[in-house]
Parts: sequence; structure tokens; C-alpha cells
Amino acid sequence: MADIPAKAEIGVTTGPIRGSKKIHVGPLGVAMREIHLDPSSGEPPLRVYDTSGPYTDPTARIDIMAGLPQIRRTWIEGRGDVETYDGREIRPEDNGQLGPDRSGGVPQFPRTGLNRPLRAKPGINVSQMHYARRGIITPEMEYVATRENLGREMLKDYVRDGESFGASIPDYVTPEFVRDEVARGRAIIPNNINHPESEPMAIGRNFLVKINANIGNSAVASNVASEVDKLVWSIRWGADTVMDLSTGRNIHDTREWIIRNAPVPIGTVPIYQALEKVGGIAEELTWEIFRDTLIEQAEQGVDYFTIHAGVRLPYIPLTAKRVTGIVSRGGSIMAKWCLAHHKESFLYERFDEITEIMKAYDIAYSLGDGLRPGAIADANDEAQFAELYTLGELTKRAWAQDVQVMIEGPGHVPMHKIKQNMDKQLEACGEAPFYTLGPLTTDIAPGYDHITSGIGAAMIGWYGTAMLCYVTPKEHLGLPDRDDVKVGVVTYKLAAHAADLAKGHPAAKMRDDALSRARFEFRWRDQFNLSLDPDTAESYHDQTLPAEGAKTAHFCSMCGPKFCSMKITQEVREFAAKQNAPVETFVAADEAEAGMQEMSEKFREKGGEVYLSAE
Amino acid sequence: MADIPAKAEIGVTTGPIRGSKKIHVGPLGVAMREIHLDPSSGEPPLRVYDTSGPYTDPTARIDIMAGLPQIRRTWIEGRGDVETYDGREIRPEDNGQLGPDRSGGVPQFPRTGLNRPLRAKPGINVSQMHYARRGIITPEMEYVATRENLGREMLKDYVRDGESFGASIPDYVTPEFVRDEVARGRAIIPNNINHPESEPMAIGRNFLVKINANIGNSAVASNVASEVDKLVWSIRWGADTVMDLSTGRNIHDTREWIIRNAPVPIGTVPIYQALEKVGGIAEELTWEIFRDTLIEQAEQGVDYFTIHAGVRLPYIPLTAKRVTGIVSRGGSIMAKWCLAHHKESFLYERFDEITEIMKAYDIAYSLGDGLRPGAIADANDEAQFAELYTLGELTKRAWAQDVQVMIEGPGHVPMHKIKQNMDKQLEACGEAPFYTLGPLTTDIAPGYDHITSGIGAAMIGWYGTAMLCYVTPKEHLGLPDRDDVKVGVVTYKLAAHAADLAKGHPAAKMRDDALSRARFEFRWRDQFNLSLDPDTAESYHDQTLPAEGAKTAHFCSMCGPKFCSMKITQEVREFAAKQNAPVETFVAADEAEAGMQEMSEKFREKGGEVYLSAE
Repeated sequence: MADIPAKAEIGVTTGPIRGSKKIHVGPLGVAMREIHLDPSSGEPPLRVYDTSGPYTDPTARIDIMAGLPQIRRTWIEGRGDVETYDGREIRPEDNGQLGPDRSGGVPQFPRTGLNRPLRAKPGINVSQMHYARRGIITPEMEYVATRENLGREMLKDYVRDGESFGASIPDYVTPEFVRDEVARGRAIIPNNINHPESEPMAIGRNFLVKINANIGNSAVASNVASEVDKLVWSIRWGADTVMDLSTGRNIHDTREWIIRNAPVPIGTVPIYQALEKVGGIAEELTWEIFRDTLIEQAEQGVDYFTIHAGVRLPYIPLTAKRVTGIVSRGGSIMAKWCLAHHKESFLYERFDEITEIMKAYDIAYSLGDGLRPGAIADANDEAQFAELYTLGELTKRAWAQDVQVMIEGPGHVPMHKIKQNMDKQLEACGEAPFYTLGPLTTDIAPGYDHITSGIGAAMIGWYGTAMLCYVTPKEHLGLPDRDDVKVGVVTYKLAAHAADLAKGHPAAKMRDDALSRARFEFRWRDQFNLSLDPDTAESYHDQTLPAEGAKTAHFCSMCGPKFCSMKITQEVREFAAKQNAPVETFVAADEAEAGMQEMSEKFREKGGEVYLSAE
Repeated sequence: MADIPAKAEIGVTTGPIRGSKKIHVGPLGVAMREIHLDPSSGEPPLRVYDTSGPYTDPTARIDIMAGLPQIRRTWIEGRGDVETYDGREIRPEDNGQLGPDRSGGVPQFPRTGLNRPLRAKPGINVSQMHYARRGIITPEMEYVATRENLGREMLKDYVRDGESFGASIPDYVTPEFVRDEVARGRAIIPNNINHPESEPMAIGRNFLVKINANIGNSAVASNVASEVDKLVWSIRWGADTVMDLSTGRNIHDTREWIIRNAPVPIGTVPIYQALEKVGGIAEELTWEIFRDTLIEQAEQGVDYFTIHAGVRLPYIPLTAKRVTGIVSRGGSIMAKWCLAHHKESFLYERFDEITEIMKAYDIAYSLGDGLRPGAIADANDEAQFAELYTLGELTKRAWAQDVQVMIEGPGHVPMHKIKQNMDKQLEACGEAPFYTLGPLTTDIAPGYDHITSGIGAAMIGWYGTAMLCYVTPKEHLGLPDRDDVKVGVVTYKLAAHAADLAKGHPAAKMRDDALSRARFEFRWRDQFNLSLDPDTAESYHDQTLPAEGAKTAHFCSMCGPKFCSMKITQEVREFAAKQNAPVETFVAADEAEAGMQEMSEKFREKGGEVYLSAE
């Protein structure tokens, strides 16, 4: 049993992020991170959004074998609308035909006692959308409101500045605002009642832009220890949700390890496991096997399911002339099934039955874009938009049962075609949150696709996409390792933040300003600590100026002491201060905008004197 | 003399880029690169733009101590309007007070004979703009036309697709088009008559988007060997021009080594060296010292000068309330000079005299944005735009003497404020080429600023910026090493290409399509070779699937054999091909766009039969 992790083997990174302190705010103990600044700054600690869970809390006891505390359990049971029952038994096919001893695979997560999952009492809907539509503000919604407000209360005389393309970002987020957004379907709070370890978060155009990180075993590589490590590693750097895209064997057990240790929502693509159960032969998939897989994963606590119900039989021919055909795994599996059986997709035909399952566990739909373009040449084509409009139709069908929905988007799209994706999605899907993969803005840079896609992600996030699925440097080439996961997450965090800034999110600019003040005042440590990746920032600085003194030096290696423009600017200010008038009164600001001719005349009128007397 | 490079010490990377062959096209022998594809593709070699010079030509003899062949020398002398003369003597202050033996510094470049530079005969203007305006098509313009056409002749039934925001990108570039663009000032061909080693290239909104890489010694680090290596390394990966931003000692000699070995235009910021000559004390700068420095660098062959003549005395107060004040080195040096002397900038006042020098050597202006914003908080402010309008005024003054001009731009700008920069520049500067640094779209990711700025660079390139100045991962933190230079260059190449795609450049999409076809057909080697960085692409692939066989495997490590969507898509096509009707005729394409209801009715009408008989 080669890759069974002993406790020591599952090593995850714990401890605070450099320069930061984990805090818990309000009666619900909403997790946040405070970045403390040098006293010379005279600034209060800056609060930032924190997705890292207990792993960055020095006071928390971390035991991967036991899983995380179930912070939502009392909220869920307190509503009195759920019941425990004898869960579905784990079968060999759930783990690629491994026997109960898991020989050759990964061990079962040490569950305490029997499998007694929660589900809604008969006839009850436990989705956050259902509560919201009945006017109920849940603790989950309150948690989200506090979490999203992040520092806004510190804002003084703040002036909104941004272009939000019709979004309705509030100055301040109230629990009622969260409820209303969820009720309208403009935001989702993905949290399966069987994943009480998760900290509630919202995905919606009027909230902070979120990012997702993909992890998971594949048939050719990876193991459970490294996947749990990648989970913890990705949320440390800011992943808001994590998708377990495991294929191959051990799918069930790998997922169990991940969910029990995940403080963020976990998403999956159930068709992957269903396909494994039929030996990888798409034609042999059946509704019964798929349904059984949904129940299996619902009981484990998966928070959102990617369902490719928009890949309809009549759309498949539209992909035949594409440069890269169908690039979505789920999409191609369903396309093959449809053709083999000459039948409409069972995901489409059984959609309402799937919705029945979703609402019994509060699982959110992530309606998959199985026909997304896989190349610049295929962007915004008939197949893609035909599917999108079907996803819009399915959104309304899910909403009719008060089930939460988000919509997956492309893919590979050149910059000039990105906005059309957002516009059509808003129109077709009634403002349901958009969740895009990139998009990649060119095909020619494998090895750098976190960047080709980070460009598209920042832009579509600005236009209104609610969550950005990360792309790592290994995209199209191999499986991301730990470093790739970090680079992918940080790249997408900066893209999401750039989008929040451009949308005019009230709190977004606070961090940029704090970092820029630190930069201007040569508070190097503050500059490192305020960055998305303090470790990398400091190590890059040290590669050129390793000396400890350089951390406080009033210059840096780029220009050296003589050339530092920041230093010279400060001298300019001091110089001006020494004069008998403040620098602002040299010349009235408005004059500066006047044309040159006028300026020089004024200048001459004043006898070439720059410093005007104060009176 | 610690860091004097022995011949062996200046190691530069030579040899072809993997999978590519250097070719020389037409009577002028225009350098290009051909990427050869696997015979199974049935595709001709793909021609790509090549900036790498002789270093990637296996037949070229490279000798750093001798410099590159002077390919333009006969063109320049053939015009009969230049003369050689006794050049200015190199003085100790040119190299930070080093004596003639260069003790403690870098050695003099082994010049053959005396310093006998070229300059225009008295009263003559040798700028490309001057020739263009007199209707003369120079070999430089012909070279540019061939170079920019790159593959367009291979285009069959090509449909323009893009949004160019008012640019006039032609289907095919003629020498006359190049002449006209240069005459109108919409493009520049920077090539000092004393840099005959350079291969002509154009910077303009209607040509391919170009990128610049910065290198150079600083007071605290670097040496000549590593700078020459960085030069060769940066053009290998695609830098179209290189700026030598050296400070500290050895400025003159470092620059000489760089220019003599540079097949691309070299830019500098002369004020840096002038400041060194006065011991780093800005107040002690004089017009005479600056003018002497211009002549010194003009004789060496610098192709474009960054001149911060727009930093005018009245604008300085506008920066006083900024978060990061003045972040441009040249800008802050001039600001300090202006305040110290209570005088208008001598760069502004002597502008026409500077222009006289420029036209005698055909040096292009890069009018510096000394007041560019250094933080998101300072973007698009009064100071920035006051300077921009002055740069517009100076552009017209330079054009009045037929001297080529481009305009430098920001900086740090959130996404929603980027387009305004482009729009105002076009308006203020009469479509003179815009040359921007990034812009960075957020301040919070030091260590990743090649990406925060790559986002802004791709966008502003799309809007119309002609050249993008790269930013490396070390920006704000330290001096870029070899790896940082490569990452910066490749990041900016992909941003420039994404911009070309979005603008609808006729030839841009050919490479994306070729790579995507290779991807779909599992031609792994072709996919690597067609990418901007074949070495990285292949090494990433090999990290997961090192086996040689994997290079031809019809699947990859992400999904493994069972799950590969590309493989399934191909099966879908084969499956369809086996049927008695082509896949396109399952259902008419237009039906696919019809609503679901209609679709299912049609579906039923056809008795649920998917395959319609051919007649």
C-alpha cells in the first residue's frame, strides 16, 4: 500500500502568513487577516479577505486525520429541517474497484462511526436561495455580509471611482443585501449541509470577485497526501473555492480527505466519477449510475456540481468544423454518449430530477460549458452560444425550484470578443453568477497560460464575472505541482483584485494605497507584508540586496542612492517646505492645465519668480 | 581589474531557437524565423518575426570583441549626405572618473582605429522622417515592409476580425505605406547612422505591436559581461528594442559593448549619464554638460533618447499631494533642478537645439513621461495630463524639423482608466507612436508585476499603443537577472500578440491556429516549437510525462487516455463519419440556435431520429 499517508506524510503548511495575524470578527467569528504596519506609518492594521481557514491560526489544532471543526453544524441543525439517515454504502467501484482494504490505493478517511449524512426532511428545500426567497436571513448570509465588508468601515470621505458595467455594488453590505442577492439568483452561497466545515462565502457580481483552484488525482499521477497539501496550499494564497477534478482510482477516498479538511466550498464534476464506474466507456453511462454518483457525492458534502446539461444532441454537429472541437472533458463525454445512443442528453432530460437532489442537500449548480472554445479560432461560435442559451433556460428551471445556480464560461477568447461573452451571459442567464476559465487571450504561449488567461480573467472580471477559475503555468502541458498552484492562485488573485479596482469596489483600493505609501516611504517590510505574496517579494529584494540594513534603506537596488526618484521627490518636498510658501502655491493647479503659451506668459508676468508670497 | 571580461567571459547564447530555422528574405536579406512542422501536419513552415539577429544563425560567426557586421553602412553612405569627423574624445567623467586604463572598471571596447563617427553634412537632415516627407523610400523602409508582412502572403480567403479603435492596419504592407506612416509621424524607424549594425524595424500603431527590454548596470550591481549577455538573451526571446539604463561607473564603455553587439535599436536616458558627470547632484546639471552627453551618445550610435522635456516647472507642484510623487528618475532629477534654480527646465527651453542634434544623426525622440503615476491612486491626474499635453506640443516642434518622435506613457493605471490614456495621447500628440510602461493594473503584487502590468500592456496595446516596455518580476524589488529578463520578455510578447489579435492584424492569428491544430492533433513537438518559449513548454510537459513516447501519445497527463476530450472529440468525428451522413447534417446548424422548445418539437417531428437520410 505504497502511497498510504501516515499522519506525518500528509504535511500541510500551517502558521500565519508573514506579517499577518488571523482574527475572528463579530458574534459569528468571521475569519479575517490583519496586516500590521510599522509604527512609523501611523496607520492601523489593514484587514484583508482570508480564505485560509484554521491553518493560518496559531491557536488552532490541526489534525488532518480528524478533519476541521464543523462550524456550521449547529446553524444547519438549528433550522430543524434536516434529518440524518443511513448513507449509501461505499462500493468498490467508487474507488476504481479497490476492495474494502483499499489495497494499492489510499486509505479510507477515519470516519467516526457509520455514514450518517444529513439531508432535508421529506418535501423540504434547504437551499440558501429557498430561505432567502422566504425572507429568512441565515447565519450563512450574516457571515458573508461581515466578510465582504472588509475594511469598508475604515473608509473616510471615500469617493466611488470605477466602471461597473451595470453592477450594483453597495457602499456597505448588509445581511439583507446578501439575502436579496441570493433570492434574485444574482449570488450563490455554495455550502452543502454535509460540509459543515466550510466558512460561508458568496459568488456574485456585486461581491468581491472570487477565484477557484483546481486540484485532483489523475489516472497517471498524484496521490491523496499531495492533494490535501495542495488544498491547504491553494487556500493559503487565496483560493475561494477548490474543485476536486480527480479521475482514475481512489476518487471517493481522495474527495473525502479533501472535504473533511476544507474550509472553502468544494466543487466536482460528477460525470468524471460516473465514467470511471463504467470503465471509462462513455456509451455505457446511464442515468442510474449518474444519479447514484450524485447521491454519493452529496452525502460527502460537495458544495457545487458541474453539470454539462447544456451539451444537447443538436449542438454537437456545430463543433465538427472547429479547430479544436470539444475541449471540455464533460462535454466530450456527453457528446459521445448522445451520438452513440442517438439520444438527447440524459443530463438535459433528467434536469429536474437532478434539481430535486440539489435542493435536499443545498448543492449549487455550476452549469458546465461543455462546448466552450478551446482555441482562439473557435471563440464565440454557434456551438458555444447555442449551449449558453440552453444554460439560461436551465437556470430558470433550477430557480423554479429555488436551487442556486452559477454558469461556467470560456475558455479561449481574443480580447475583442470577451465582453460579448459577458453581455450574452447576463442576457441569457438572468444575471446568474458567471464563472469563467480565463479566458486565454492567445494560444501561442503554453507554459505561460496563467498569464495569457490572467489578462482575459481580469478583463471579464471587470465586465462582471463573479468567479475566475485559475489556470496554472502547466495548463495544456502537465499536472500542476505545488509551485504551479501558488503561481496560478496569486496570478488570479491579482487579476480578481484588478477587476475589483476597475469596478470601483469601495474597499479594493485601500490595499493598493497602503502598499504604495509603504513603497514611497521605504517601509520595505510593510511593502512585502501588504503584497499578495510576501515571501516572494522579500526573497526577490534579498537577491539583490541581502543585507538586513537594506530593509530600511532609503533606496533600492534598481537605482542606488543617487538615482532614487522617490528619494529625490521627498527632497523636492522638503526643499519646497523650506521656502516661504507651501509647494502647492508655486502656481495654481488650474494654470498647469492651461496651454504652454499661456503658462509661460503667466510665468513672465510673475517675473520668473516661482515662489509667490503666501498673502 | 576584477570584472574585465576575457573573450570567454562574455558568454552569450547562440544557436537556433528549438525547431526553428533562421532565414533571410528578399534582396535585402530580411531576417525571419521559420518554424518547421511535422510532415503529418501537411502544413508549410510558419514564418515568425525575428529580433534575435545573427546570434540564432548557425552560419554566422559571432565575436563579441569585434561586434556585429554593419549591414546598414552602405545604405547610409550611399545616400551621400553624411561625413566622418574626429569624434569627441572619451573623458574620465564618461566612465565615472575612471582613468584611460579603466582600472577597476570595464575595458574599452576594442575599437579599430580612431573614433571617426558619422554625422550629417552641414545643414543636412538625415532622419528617416525627412526622407519620407520628400517622398524617398529608403532601404530601411523596404526592410520594414518585408519584415512586417510576415506570412501574410500565405493567407487564403482571410476575413478581417478585430477591433482596432481607428487604426489603419493594411492587409499588406508596402514600402510606400511605411514611407507614408513615417512621413505622417504615425511610425518611427529608430536607427542612428552610427549604429549600422541594427536591423530596421518600425514602431507605430499600424504595425505589429513591439516590446522593449531594459538592461543596464546600476551603482550597486551588474557588470558589462552580464549586460551584453542580457542584450543577446532578451532579443533571442523577442525584444524589439533594448534600453541601456546603466547608472554608476562604466556607463560609456558598457554602452559601447552593447551597441556594437546589438542588431536592435538601443535607447538611453542621457540625463542619467549627465547626472553621473556632476557627481549625482541634480542642481549642478547644466545645458552644456547635457549637450556634451548627447553628442557622446549620438556618436556611439544610440537610436533613441528619452528626453524628459515635459517636466515643466509649473507642473511640479501638481505632484506634491500624490501618494508616490514623482517616480520617474529623469522626471525627479529635472524637478529637483527646476526647484533648485527657480527656473524652467533647460530640456524644455533648449528643445529645438536638442532637435538639431537628433536630425544630424537620425536619433528618435522618446519624450519621457517624467510625471507618470507611480501608484493606482495617482493615475490620470492633473500632473500626468499637463505633461502629456506639453509632450504633444513638443512633438509638433520636433516634427517641424522632420525629427522622429514617440511618446512615453504610464505607469500604474487601473483598468477602467487605461483607455483614457490612449485617447488623450492620440489627441494631444497627433498619433505619434505611444510607448508605455505596462501599465500596472494594481499595486498589491510586487514579485508579480510582470503580470499586473502585462494585463494593462495587452489592453493598451489593443487600444493602440505601438510599443510596450517590459516589466520583470523584480520590478520594485531588485535588479532582473537572466531568468527575470526572459520571463519579462515572453510575458510582453504574449501581451503584444494578444493585442495584435484583438486589433485584427491579418497575420497574427496564423500562429494561434497552427498551434491549436498541433494541440488538437497531439503533435506535441509542433506545439512546443510554435510556442513563444519552446524550452519551457517541453520541460513542463516532461515534468509529468518524461517518456519519449509521451511526445507522440494521443493523450496527456492532465486527463490520461480515458478522459482526453480531444481524443473523444476525434472519436466523435470518426463515429459520425461511419454513419451514412456527414456529421454536419445530423441537424441543420440554424436549428441549433432556435430555442429549446422548438428544437424538441422538430426533434419529435423527425421521430426522434438524429441521422437524416442524405436526400
